[in-house]
Amino acid sequence: MAVYTDVTADELQAYLGDYDLGDLLSYKGIAEGVENSNFLLHTTRGHFILTLYEKRVAAGDLPFFIGLMEHLAARGLTCPQPVKTRAGTALGRLAGRPSAIVTFLDGMWVRRPTVAHCHALGGALAAMHLAGLDFSMQRRNSLSVDGWRPLFETARARADEVTPGLADSIEAALTTLESGWPTELPHGVIHADLFPDNVFFLGDRVSGLIDFYFACTDTLAYDVAICLNAWCFEADGAYNVTKGRALLDGYERVRPLSAPERAALPVLCRGAALRFLLTRLVDWFAVPAGALVRRKDPLEYYRKLRFHQTIDGARDYGIEAAC
Amino acid sequence: MAVYTDVTADELQAYLGDYDLGDLLSYKGIAEGVENSNFLLHTTRGHFILTLYEKRVAAGDLPFFIGLMEHLAARGLTCPQPVKTRAGTALGRLAGRPSAIVTFLDGMWVRRPTVAHCHALGGALAAMHLAGLDFSMQRRNSLSVDGWRPLFETARARADEVTPGLADSIEAALTTLESGWPTELPHGVIHADLFPDNVFFLGDRVSGLIDFYFACTDTLAYDVAICLNAWCFEADGAYNVTKGRALLDGYERVRPLSAPERAALPVLCRGAALRFLLTRLVDWFAVPAGALVRRKDPLEYYRKLRFHQTIDGARDYGIEAAC
Repeated sequence: MAVYTDVTADELQAYLGDYDLGDLLSYKGIAEGVENSNFLLHTTRGHFILTLYEKRVAAGDLPFFIGLMEHLAARGLTCPQPVKTRAGTALGRLAGRPSAIVTFLDGMWVRRPTVAHCHALGGALAAMHLAGLDFSMQRRNSLSVDGWRPLFETARARADEVTPGLADSIEAALTTLESGWPTELPHGVIHADLFPDNVFFLGDRVSGLIDFYFACTDTLAYDVAICLNAWCFEADGAYNVTKGRALLDGYERVRPLSAPERAALPVLCRGAALRFLLTRLVDWFAVPAGALVRRKDPLEYYRKLRFHQTIDGARDYGIEAAC
Repeated sequence: MAVYTDVTADELQAYLGDYDLGDLLSYKGIAEGVENSNFLLHTTRGHFILTLYEKRVAAGDLPFFIGLMEHLAARGLTCPQPVKTRAGTALGRLAGRPSAIVTFLDGMWVRRPTVAHCHALGGALAAMHLAGLDFSMQRRNSLSVDGWRPLFETARARADEVTPGLADSIEAALTTLESGWPTELPHGVIHADLFPDNVFFLGDRVSGLIDFYFACTDTLAYDVAICLNAWCFEADGAYNVTKGRALLDGYERVRPLSAPERAALPVLCRGAALRFLLTRLVDWFAVPAGALVRRKDPLEYYRKLRFHQTIDGARDYGIEAAC
């Protein structure tokens, strides 16, 4: 939950003077998003989300994120649509922070995704990948294979405090991935953080994708691997192949994976698991144990990494045997 | 900010089955209220607030709070109106917590109240007092003079860690208040926590009062004293007599204070300052220093207490000289 920066009604009213959004009727800080401060606005024109971008989002990346949401929305993808000022800008500044207003999307994120949700998610992910193919801006993925070792170095010395042998296991996995990471697979815009809390549903239908603040230009199938990690494991740590099959089938009905993409799934899944293991590990040591922010368990992704290390091929994830 | 308990969409949808609120379209945890978990619901029937009552609210008191909101709303006061199930009950149970749904109120709480806000607040407070006169339920104020010493005892030993001499100052103020606390003044329902974040405005007009979870049966003028403390001091600690005059004038236009109520204002203000000094002091020691919850400064109310100890009579608060 997150409201790091408060805003006064006067500041907000003055800020809204640049927009055609009518009169402000209410605004409430909402407990969503970990990186930024988010407010739900009610104006005489409807409901909107105001985001104040906190330090962890680089201001230089904001035009990419805002431009991407505009691009995807223009192609019919339901994602938050940036609202522009009368002068035509979508990026502003409020309470000393870069800021933007986007449209409000109905829908709920699912705490316990079902097979049907996984299938729908797969389709929405593929639709996003297709819609992003002609997006002209580029953003490097700082959290891809090149970024993992520097991240690891900041946590290596204390890694074994979390579980004995963790540092050596990460070192071994990292070395393997660095030498065998696929670079020739189809690229495009990936969401890179499409966890259940970033996908809204109405019933079994995806009603919107949100939180594009890790989006970047990278291997499309890596996004699939991130979703297999985030959606298809049960609370007890077991991979649910029925959910995996549903996710992959949903994806392939919209954008079939090529044979090289399928073949790379195990290594991409290991990479995705390592990426979240590493960021959680760094956060684990950065957040004091007594703090009232829930730290995410790095070991969840360590267990996923070890599962992926046992995988023979894409078929083990539930992909159809067709090709 | 507060969402202590999360709710799944399935749980919430099942819960809403008992209400005539249509289909659930979205719900978001909101960063308001310190004691409970609050969610903004959007259904096909409109917007509502769902509250899950956490431990600090005694379940036995909920019928009083819910009944009071119904009573005040029926008398035209804009406060959240409890929504009943088809079976006619307003109190439910969700995610293992007592729960209720109330109507959504537009309006914003003001971070920096002006003289005009103080005047409007005074009027709204008096209107609440009048509307509550024929409310049939009673609730003892556990945070009135009888409750202060037990509270003090839990923090006395460490009080001087906050500032040297604090324990002795509190002991002296407490002893004086215990022997001279007025008990014969007009009683009724008081809000008891009408800080700026519990009062919504649209422009200079009060659009709603919220958060009745400290409401109780007590001296009406004590509620005025709580508001003078909460609304009429500047950030530098100075009492703003113009705001005080505005608040009192706004109040008296709706419900004139009697001569004994006016005469008691200084002692009631000292009591109100001590009450918030004590609860903040207890919280100060209960919340770890590193936690990401902002602890409220007990010394703010220590300074207010000392100001009130210098007051000769109600006129010093800005009350008109009329009587």
